[in-house]
Amino acid sequence: MGQIEQRLSSLSVTLPTPPPKAGLYKQSCEFGGNLLCVSGCGPDLPGMPSEKGRLGELTVAQGREAARRCMLNALAIMQRDLGTLDRVARVVKMLAFVSSAPDFYDQPMVANGASELLTEVFGEKIGCPTRSAIGTNVLPGNIPVEIELMVELKAD
Amino acid sequence: MGQIEQRLSSLSVTLPTPPPKAGLYKQSCEFGGNLLCVSGCGPDLPGMPSEKGRLGELTVAQGREAARRCMLNALAIMQRDLGTLDRVARVVKMLAFVSSAPDFYDQPMVANGASELLTEVFGEKIGCPTRSAIGTNVLPGNIPVEIELMVELKAD
Amino acid sequence: MGQIEQRLSSLSVTLPTPPPKAGLYKQSCEFGGNLLCVSGCGPDLPGMPSEKGRLGELTVAQGREAARRCMLNALAIMQRDLGTLDRVARVVKMLAFVSSAPDFYDQPMVANGASELLTEVFGEKIGCPTRSAIGTNVLPGNIPVEIELMVELKAD
Repeated sequence: MGQIEQRLSSLSVTLPTPPPKAGLYKQSCEFGGNLLCVSGCGPDLPGMPSEKGRLGELTVAQGREAARRCMLNALAIMQRDLGTLDRVARVVKMLAFVSSAPDFYDQPMVANGASELLTEVFGEKIGCPTRSAIGTNVLPGNIPVEIELMVELKAD
Repeated sequence: MGQIEQRLSSLSVTLPTPPPKAGLYKQSCEFGGNLLCVSGCGPDLPGMPSEKGRLGELTVAQGREAARRCMLNALAIMQRDLGTLDRVARVVKMLAFVSSAPDFYDQPMVANGASELLTEVFGEKIGCPTRSAIGTNVLPGNIPVEIELMVELKAD
Repeated sequence: MGQIEQRLSSLSVTLPTPPPKAGLYKQSCEFGGNLLCVSGCGPDLPGMPSEKGRLGELTVAQGREAARRCMLNALAIMQRDLGTLDRVARVVKMLAFVSSAPDFYDQPMVANGASELLTEVFGEKIGCPTRSAIGTNVLPGNIPVEIELMVELKAD
């Protein structure tokens, strides 16, 4: 059991079964020697679908929870594909899309739900990434948040 | 003639003339030793402009065709700038933006039009990338789809 | 004083104080040996907030100015975090989100405001990046433009 997996356990965070694919793509891809991309992840968990709809209709608290769930799915994909999250050297980049009513302006507060989970799990130095938080009018399946990641891995 | 160019020929896929630039940017950029970014590509082909508008007004079939055309343009840029598509080691990442009516939720089905072309041309292992499929309210020139890529190249 | 800083001075471009963070993230991250990501930057400058709202309500000229300001903020972050902009080998990739009325189609003209600043400062070969210019219905704080960057750095 890796150190990060122990950390998850001590935080009482249980990673879900990785989400099903929604189309023709890979859920993660190692490249460039020690980098990893993770495909855009939504907030649906097995047997626990996310609330659907836009921020503005949903509350910021609901959006933050959705963002956290997106990150749980991303971590589940990474753990499955890497074997252990201990291989993560640094979470480099998060791109967070927030389905938003046209007068909803707090996308960063929503995305914080994902950043906070990363920081709890990996610590701020390794887990806290660069980030863009972007509003959009609609996301696949009417989910409220979709998040993709780029990660640097430890040298073998 | 490269192996991928032969594959294109056997698939009866003819790459278009690379699209004109829509502003001040490069259409591709090699970086990081063996990586390549391709700028966001739209679906207009020479003498064959794409249907315009949003998914929801356009059908999923029309959107898939537009996504395929975006990828034809991306491949045309890559072939011109790399000399041959045989230099592609792996398509790492696709970011697909789908102009969408607010109740259109099938962005992944649209983006599949691009993933399928990549997989036909390069095979699933090399061609099938990580992906995010994102709805948006409007794209440049009212095109229905815009797609950018990151690719890993073979070592020289 | 670096060569790029001298160039900024000769262009009468003064970089602002780097913007405050809008949430839990890093403003830049070095990774992969010689790459740098810069988080999504908005157009607010110290004591000079940007005009707010969507393109279509704002003019293209206002949008271009906002895009230029986003890039000033990105350059300010890079200068602070890198020590000198002389470390930039190549601006690889710009992702520009433009808050847009549903019938505004000139996102590339808006993003050019950022590309032009990069090209003035670094020259076209180094400064002109690949780019996607994407419309969206709303951005954080109702800013009109948000831009993120990926940059290649010179080997140490």
